Amino acid sequence: MINDDWEDSMEDFTFVNKTEVHFGPDRFDSELAPVMERFGKRILLTYGGGSIKKTGLYDRVIKALDGFDIIELSGIEPNPKIDSVRAGQKLVKEHDVDAILAIGGGSVIDATKVIASARFYDGDPWDLVLNPALRQKIDQLPFVDILTLAATGSEMNYNSVISNPDTHQKQGTRGPNSPAVSFLDPTLTYTVSQRQTAAGSTDIMSHLFEQYFDNAINNDVQDGLREGVMRAVIKWAPVAIEEPDNYDARANLMWASTMALNELLRQGNKNRWTAHAIEHQLSAYYDITHGIGLGILTPRWMTYVLSDETAPKFAQYGRNVWHLEGDQDMDVAKAAIQKTYDWIKALGVPMTLPEVGIDSDENFKVMAQAAVTGGKLDKVAFVKLKTADVVKLYEQSMTTEGFE
Amino acid sequence: MINDDWEDSMEDFTFVNKTEVHFGPDRFDSELAPVMERFGKRILLTYGGGSIKKTGLYDRVIKALDGFDIIELSGIEPNPKIDSVRAGQKLVKEHDVDAILAIGGGSVIDATKVIASARFYDGDPWDLVLNPALRQKIDQLPFVDILTLAATGSEMNYNSVISNPDTHQKQGTRGPNSPAVSFLDPTLTYTVSQRQTAAGSTDIMSHLFEQYFDNAINNDVQDGLREGVMRAVIKWAPVAIEEPDNYDARANLMWASTMALNELLRQGNKNRWTAHAIEHQLSAYYDITHGIGLGILTPRWMTYVLSDETAPKFAQYGRNVWHLEGDQDMDVAKAAIQKTYDWIKALGVPMTLPEVGIDSDENFKVMAQAAVTGGKLDKVAFVKLKTADVVKLYEQSMTTEGFE
Repeated sequence: MINDDWEDSMEDFTFVNKTEVHFGPDRFDSELAPVMERFGKRILLTYGGGSIKKTGLYDRVIKALDGFDIIELSGIEPNPKIDSVRAGQKLVKEHDVDAILAIGGGSVIDATKVIASARFYDGDPWDLVLNPALRQKIDQLPFVDILTLAATGSEMNYNSVISNPDTHQKQGTRGPNSPAVSFLDPTLTYTVSQRQTAAGSTDIMSHLFEQYFDNAINNDVQDGLREGVMRAVIKWAPVAIEEPDNYDARANLMWASTMALNELLRQGNKNRWTAHAIEHQLSAYYDITHGIGLGILTPRWMTYVLSDETAPKFAQYGRNVWHLEGDQDMDVAKAAIQKTYDWIKALGVPMTLPEVGIDSDENFKVMAQAAVTGGKLDKVAFVKLKTADVVKLYEQSMTTEGFE
Repeated sequence: MINDDWEDSMEDFTFVNKTEVHFGPDRFDSELAPVMERFGKRILLTYGGGSIKKTGLYDRVIKALDGFDIIELSGIEPNPKIDSVRAGQKLVKEHDVDAILAIGGGSVIDATKVIASARFYDGDPWDLVLNPALRQKIDQLPFVDILTLAATGSEMNYNSVISNPDTHQKQGTRGPNSPAVSFLDPTLTYTVSQRQTAAGSTDIMSHLFEQYFDNAINNDVQDGLREGVMRAVIKWAPVAIEEPDNYDARANLMWASTMALNELLRQGNKNRWTAHAIEHQLSAYYDITHGIGLGILTPRWMTYVLSDETAPKFAQYGRNVWHLEGDQDMDVAKAAIQKTYDWIKALGVPMTLPEVGIDSDENFKVMAQAAVTGGKLDKVAFVKLKTADVVKLYEQSMTTEGFE
C-alpha cells in the first residue's frame, strides 16, 4: 500500500523515555549503592510475597545497601491492590524517604509508581488512579527497580494497573514517572515457575499484538520493530520453560518485555488496545493471572476480528513473524492465528476459561459492558467491538472449538 | 544455537537516551519557541550551505523564534570540518548564548554537538575531538535540532564525525550530549535530491548492518529490531526516490535513520564497526559522500567476510529481511549479498570507485592502514581484517566484478 495522504499514515508523536537501563547479571550488588545515593539515604523497599527472601535476593539487596536507612513495604500482591498503595503512601510520608527501591515484577513496580506520586498527595491515592492528571501536577519521589519477572514492561514505562476490589475496578493510570534506573538481571528470573514464565511471555506477546494490529497504515519501521521482538519471544519462551536457567532465553525474554512496552513501539499508532481491556475484566472479577487471561482471549479475538479488511495485516504477521508462505492473505492469516494458539498452548497455558475456574457466564454481560466502556472498544479499537461482541468472545473462550 | 554460557551471549549494557522526539509535519512552527524557552532567549543558529533559505525553512524558523536573540553560523559543510567548530566556539563564547538550534542533517548536528562542548573549553576544539574524555568533564550547552536529511541518526545520539583536512583525519567523537529535543518533520525532506536520498538510505542500512553482523550470539531481540528497520528502508527508499513527496516513504526513512543509530540497536553487541572505518578513509582522502562510499564498499565487505563460519548470520539476514527461501546457508547468504548490491545500485548509487572520481590506487595502502588502526579492525571486528585485506576491498571496489 502506497499512501500519499498523511492522514492515514503513522500518527505524529512526541517520545522521550529517561529510564536508565542496567542490563546484565550480578550488577546491582556493586551498582545499587551508588545509584541510590543519587537520591539520598532513606529508602523505602517495596516487594511482594517474600519469594525474594527464599531466593536470597533480599539478603543481597540489604548487603548492597549497607549504610542506608531502609523502611520496608512487603506483601504487594499480583494485580496490586489500592490498599498496598495506601500503605506505601503512609510509610513514605511518615518516614520522609528520599527514594523507593522496588524489587519484583510489574505488580510491585506498578504500585511503586503510584506510591511515588502519593508521597506528594494528601488525599486517598485511589483519586490519583482514577484521575492521573492529578499526578502530573505534583512532585514525584524518584524510584529504582530490580526486575524479577519478564512480563509487563513496567520497568521502563509510565504505566500502572491498580485494582480496587471494593468497586471491582482494575484501572490503568499513566503518571509522569518512569523508573529512574532499572536493573535488568536475567539470572534473577531463573527461579520463575513454568506457569509464570508462560504467563509473562504471553503478556509480552499481547503487548506486541495490541500495538501491531493498528489502523495506521505504512507504519513499517514500527511494525518491523514489533515483528522482530515477537520472533525472539516465540523462539525463547519455550526454551525458558524447558531450561529455566538458560541465560539467552531469560535475557531475550527480559529485554523483550522491556522493549515491548517502553512506549517506543506504540508510537505512530492510531487506536487503543483491545485484548487488554477485555482481559482486565477477567482478572478484576476472578483474580486470574493477567497473562493467562490474555493467552486464552487473544486467539479468539484474532479470529473474531479477521475479515477481508484485516486479513492483509494478519497475513503480514504470518509472513514476517512465522515465515508462512502463500499468496492468499486469508489463508496465511488463518494459519498465523492457529500458530499463535498452538504456541500459547505449548507453553502450558490453560486455553479455556473453565480451566482457570470460570465455569459460568453469569458476569459476562456486565464485564463486557465495562470492557467496552473502559477500553472505548466501540470507538477507537483496531476493529470496533460492542458489548454483544465481547460477550461472544468470553463465550468462545469457554471451549476449544475452532482451534482443536 | 542454544547457548548456556553467557560469555558468548549478548553483552551487558547500560542504556539511556534522553532526547525528546517531536515527530510529524509542521510542528516546529508552533512548538519551537516554547522548546527553546526552556533554555533561554539567546540562540546560536547553525546550518549548512543555504538550501534552507531556498526552501523557505529559514524564514519559518526566524518567524517561529520571533522575540529571540539569534546569532548565526552558516556554511557548515558535509563531512563537517574542524574550522566550522572553531568558528562556532568563538560565537557561543563571544555572545554567551543559552542554547544552539541546529537546522540540517548529520553534518550540522555533528558539528553542533562539539560546539556545545567547546563553549566550556578554552583550547582548540580539535582536542575535544581527539580526546572525548575531555568533553565528559565539562558543561555542555543544550541544543535542539530540526532535521532535514534522513541518514546519520545524529538527531538522537551522542556521536559526531569531524574532519581535519590538515591532517587527513576524519575522526569520530562521542560526547555526553545528545539533542535535548529533535524535530523530525518528514516533509522537510521532500526536497532532498535523488542522490542524497540514496546516500542517506545507504548510510542507514550500513548502520544497521554494522550492528547486525556482530559476534554476540542469540542477541535475538536486537537482531529482530534491526531486521525490522532494514525491511522498512528496503521498501521505502526506492519509493522516496521515485516520489520525493511521498509522506510515508519520507516518514519511514526519517524514523529509520533515528532508530538505526540512537544507540538502542547496538546494545548487547561485542564488536566494533567495519565498513564505516574503511569508508571514513575514502571521504577523508577524496571528500566523497559518506553514504555513497558505504554503498560501494558494503557488498564487497560482505562478500569478503563470507565464510562457513559467517554464512549462518548472512543467511538469517537473507531469510528475515529478504524473505529468501532455501536450506543451504551459503546459498541464501550469497543471494542476500547480491540482493543488497542490486538494491543499492537500483537507488542510483554509483557502484565503483572510479565513478566517484577515485581512479588510482595510490593511497589505498596508507588509507587501509589508517582504517585498520582507527577502527581496530584487526582486533575487534565481526571478521578481523588486516591492512592487506582492506587494500583488497578498495581494489575490489574499482570494478563491478563478482556482482554484475
